[in-house]
Amino acid sequence: MQELIKKAKKDGVKLVFDRYNDQQPQCKFGIDNVCCRNCFAGPCRIIEGKKGICGANADEIVARNIVRSVAGGASSHADHAREIVLTLLELAEGKTTAYKIKDETKLRTLAEKLGEDFTGSINNIARIVAFKALEDFRRQKGVFMEDEGQHPNWLEISTTEENMKKWTKLGIMPINFDLETSRALHETTMGNDADPTSLIKTALKNGIVDGCALHMTTDLQDVLFGTPTLTKSEANLGVMDKEYVNIAVHGHVTLLSEKIVEWARKLDREAKKVGAKGIKIVGVCCSGNEVLMRHGIPLASHILQAELAIVTGALEAMVVDTQCIYPSLQDVASCYHTKIITTMVARIPGAIHIPFHVENADESAKKIIMEAVNNFKNRKRSVLIPKKKVSLYGGFSVETIIAALRALDKDPTKPLINALKNGDIYGIVALVGCRNPKYNDEYSEKIMKGLIKNNVIILTTGCLAHCAAQSGLMLPDARNFAGDKLRGFLEKIGQANGLDAIPPVLHMGSCVDNSRIEKLINLISENAKISVSNLPIAAAAPELMTEKSIAISFWALSLGISLYTQLPINGSKKVKEILTKDMKKMLGSSIIIPENDSPENIAKAIINTIAEKRKKLGWK
Amino acid sequence: MQELIKKAKKDGVKLVFDRYNDQQPQCKFGIDNVCCRNCFAGPCRIIEGKKGICGANADEIVARNIVRSVAGGASSHADHAREIVLTLLELAEGKTTAYKIKDETKLRTLAEKLGEDFTGSINNIARIVAFKALEDFRRQKGVFMEDEGQHPNWLEISTTEENMKKWTKLGIMPINFDLETSRALHETTMGNDADPTSLIKTALKNGIVDGCALHMTTDLQDVLFGTPTLTKSEANLGVMDKEYVNIAVHGHVTLLSEKIVEWARKLDREAKKVGAKGIKIVGVCCSGNEVLMRHGIPLASHILQAELAIVTGALEAMVVDTQCIYPSLQDVASCYHTKIITTMVARIPGAIHIPFHVENADESAKKIIMEAVNNFKNRKRSVLIPKKKVSLYGGFSVETIIAALRALDKDPTKPLINALKNGDIYGIVALVGCRNPKYNDEYSEKIMKGLIKNNVIILTTGCLAHCAAQSGLMLPDARNFAGDKLRGFLEKIGQANGLDAIPPVLHMGSCVDNSRIEKLINLISENAKISVSNLPIAAAAPELMTEKSIAISFWALSLGISLYTQLPINGSKKVKEILTKDMKKMLGSSIIIPENDSPENIAKAIINTIAEKRKKLGWK
Repeated sequence: MQELIKKAKKDGVKLVFDRYNDQQPQCKFGIDNVCCRNCFAGPCRIIEGKKGICGANADEIVARNIVRSVAGGASSHADHAREIVLTLLELAEGKTTAYKIKDETKLRTLAEKLGEDFTGSINNIARIVAFKALEDFRRQKGVFMEDEGQHPNWLEISTTEENMKKWTKLGIMPINFDLETSRALHETTMGNDADPTSLIKTALKNGIVDGCALHMTTDLQDVLFGTPTLTKSEANLGVMDKEYVNIAVHGHVTLLSEKIVEWARKLDREAKKVGAKGIKIVGVCCSGNEVLMRHGIPLASHILQAELAIVTGALEAMVVDTQCIYPSLQDVASCYHTKIITTMVARIPGAIHIPFHVENADESAKKIIMEAVNNFKNRKRSVLIPKKKVSLYGGFSVETIIAALRALDKDPTKPLINALKNGDIYGIVALVGCRNPKYNDEYSEKIMKGLIKNNVIILTTGCLAHCAAQSGLMLPDARNFAGDKLRGFLEKIGQANGLDAIPPVLHMGSCVDNSRIEKLINLISENAKISVSNLPIAAAAPELMTEKSIAISFWALSLGISLYTQLPINGSKKVKEILTKDMKKMLGSSIIIPENDSPENIAKAIINTIAEKRKKLGWK
Repeated sequence: MQELIKKAKKDGVKLVFDRYNDQQPQCKFGIDNVCCRNCFAGPCRIIEGKKGICGANADEIVARNIVRSVAGGASSHADHAREIVLTLLELAEGKTTAYKIKDETKLRTLAEKLGEDFTGSINNIARIVAFKALEDFRRQKGVFMEDEGQHPNWLEISTTEENMKKWTKLGIMPINFDLETSRALHETTMGNDADPTSLIKTALKNGIVDGCALHMTTDLQDVLFGTPTLTKSEANLGVMDKEYVNIAVHGHVTLLSEKIVEWARKLDREAKKVGAKGIKIVGVCCSGNEVLMRHGIPLASHILQAELAIVTGALEAMVVDTQCIYPSLQDVASCYHTKIITTMVARIPGAIHIPFHVENADESAKKIIMEAVNNFKNRKRSVLIPKKKVSLYGGFSVETIIAALRALDKDPTKPLINALKNGDIYGIVALVGCRNPKYNDEYSEKIMKGLIKNNVIILTTGCLAHCAAQSGLMLPDARNFAGDKLRGFLEKIGQANGLDAIPPVLHMGSCVDNSRIEKLINLISENAKISVSNLPIAAAAPELMTEKSIAISFWALSLGISLYTQLPINGSKKVKEILTKDMKKMLGSSIIIPENDSPENIAKAIINTIAEKRKKLGWK
């Protein structure tokens, strides 16, 4: 990474790290979240004890800003879910042949859980499942549309009964995805909800929407593209190959990235015609995670390194779809030969736009690949691809994990629960989310190592999965970073499955696939007969950057999972109190507040949270 | 007003004006809208030519912030519409008897326009109409739900065919209300749409959602509570009466304010028991406009004076529902005896919360009135009610205006169109929206007078309607502020209807009732066979404060109506260019940019816009 940063400097290219430095010092009011621009008598900047023009105090402003961030994240995930559902529906109704049902069993299981007739043709089942999913965008108020039920269908099949009851009692049960994100805007407009407790409940409700949308997306992406299985691959920018036409997929929507992978294979010979050895697809950000999980495509870079993929001078095209697409990519690309190709929501002036939708999926994918192939001849500057590559194991869907555990016991959760009880696994931490330029490259890696050393197993997704892979933490050998007890457990499962060990950090997919983490935790909770909020588990998004991460954070809290992240709540003691004391009473979870934000202290605080849970359970 | 501001000072009470001064100087980045907090690598503060951490430039940041503001407004109006639709449905299904259908003819007309069977029982018609309305919150993609059509039902019955075609061609036709406001959040989250043109289209789409929701709300509120007819009343805080139990209704939702008016009448004798002469309901903000329009209830104050109603020391209760409810009201009330009673979305710590919904409407209204009555004995400090009251005429629904015109000609739009052609009416201006503490009390009044003097007739709603009423501009005598030609026209219609003149400023209702303005304009356009964008009309929201105002502004632009308001776009030349040049090409409208924001210059710039349109039509 350092080599490429140097090259960028030499080439006169500004990177995210430069722009981050240019913004220093950042506005303190903004950082503390006590700047309000929800009306145009403002902007107002507040400190504790003072009031804005309308009379809003710091508690209200912080809470309101949080609600809008959570809604921003939930709307993103809901819109992603909708794309997938509508594709399933088009397929079921014979309106597209570009996509097929790859995991029929999963579809039938979903239909069964949804309480729907699962006989009939597979297309008919798909249609019914799609309609049940769409209800979760359509329901207005259970009482009026009795046939649509009282709350999201997808919650019923993805979370615990205990959660459903708790949420209903607290008044945080969502009606439909869009309604709740839209209403969050209404509630936070000027002169509306001024009660921080009621606002934080709205944030929780939107967090639940977010989680529900994640489940829907993962489930139906698995139906369309297959449920991931164990796969070996590589990570780092070194996965690019000078001799090949290199194409990066960057973004989130599998509808696109799957088609790019498919057509790259089909058009490989075209690359040979232009003097390349073939086409090499590499993965950036969550699209990278998706195609790794299902096809073993190598991981090139997380969000902060996306620009560097271009700086190599060897990237013919970067194909982007939605979310986390820095507009700077086009600025950087304009200094090299790389073509930035936009396809869906993310639009960048100057980029090539090739609209991609279900109806034209194949033609668009072909066109995109050919843009890249024809660009091979335009490589200009010196090419620099770092040599370093790191191997990794990915594909840890719940199904993969359960299959691996089954090699130890026919009741697959038993070895896991036993390991938790006897301390072979001291705790489970979902360490997920973004990379943020505020923190250096080893920041999250250090937290991970701090946890593993203390026998905590890590489930990861998203950009932090890239981090873990690049640090070698997704290899059997990474067992050597683990405490003795955990190492033993990793070796035991690994060896039962033909590996030296399973890695102490499991790659469970894209950010959307955080749903897989809840699924695994619910399985443990159900079989151990212990509420999620009492299990020795925690979550962390130590480099929170996107609104989606805040949405996921509130979802974790709603599930009863305590969480470390840098929620922007410094401006309000009251909001902090709600998210610690009140939250514990309401949901059994709390935000975790370390002494300071050094990796060591974060790991320590998370371990303390787990220790408390273990103590309550009487586990050593 | 000045007397009460002095009293507040003496009583040690901070008012909105004080808090506005406390916030000076306001953040320049915020004012120019080039502060971005859509992710947590930020906040970023940009100037033209610089980039944020993700690479976003000023154009993107300004456009993105505008989209979120418009969506904030549209979601508020959509949620208001939903409340009314669900009430109609409950009523139709016999689940509530608290509300009745008051304007059957309007309901039947709506059903007919919606293309639905309008025979059968009135409840059955109501049910069908409610379902057609709900489709506009539920439709996912026309192609999958053929029976629900391709675009909002309520647009089909409220706007012109020309608009529908133009919007479809531009790709700004909404699918459903919630979907669009939710998707606006998604599109503006970090790393998504970075193209200012595409973003401004999203803003327009959300503006169309807003307008459509306004029509739905007005139409169905008229069905439930009656279509307003000409009414005489009074304005100013002087409408309160020391001898009475004074209750202010403040907010927006007629479901509440109508019940308060009803139960105040029914419980009037209870006030006598506590030594008062009776109960006096006075109106604040848009709830005030609603009950004025339908019941002649006097207008006490616009949003900036709401605190002063409490400072009188004679207000027993202020009942609030949603939107524009300053949380400061509770701070002010705590210095007097006034009870702030929250009922719906607006919550304020310390206030009394009496939940109000369709199912408990009567009980809650009774409870609220009795809280106020029982509070009469608690008046503490010296009472000061200003003496000044101003008479006004209100109730100018389209139906009222058409009926008045019919006294001149059996084709009622003919006299209006002729007056426009021959210059008796030089132009029509919708002068609407908020009052903003940035501007002094006479600011909008001066703009109004500047326009009237030049023979421009004004249609108004919302807080500016309070302003106009307080300035005496809603009286027949206000014809003396008008130019000679307009005065003659006002007298001609007035005298045909038993008045000296109709006022030069017509009170058309609450902010929601801006729909009535489009309805009138469409009638003129249709009968004159001239596109709306070519008519000598304009809109202005000169004291823009709420996000709802920005939403309404983009709606006006989408209709082809040029508009003056202080859109926060100073930070981006590109966005300004899109809203002037590009907008003219796309929709025939533009934002109006005066030399400076003095009332004189604003009036002049609006008149210039009208003059241009007249010139094109060949009208002098």
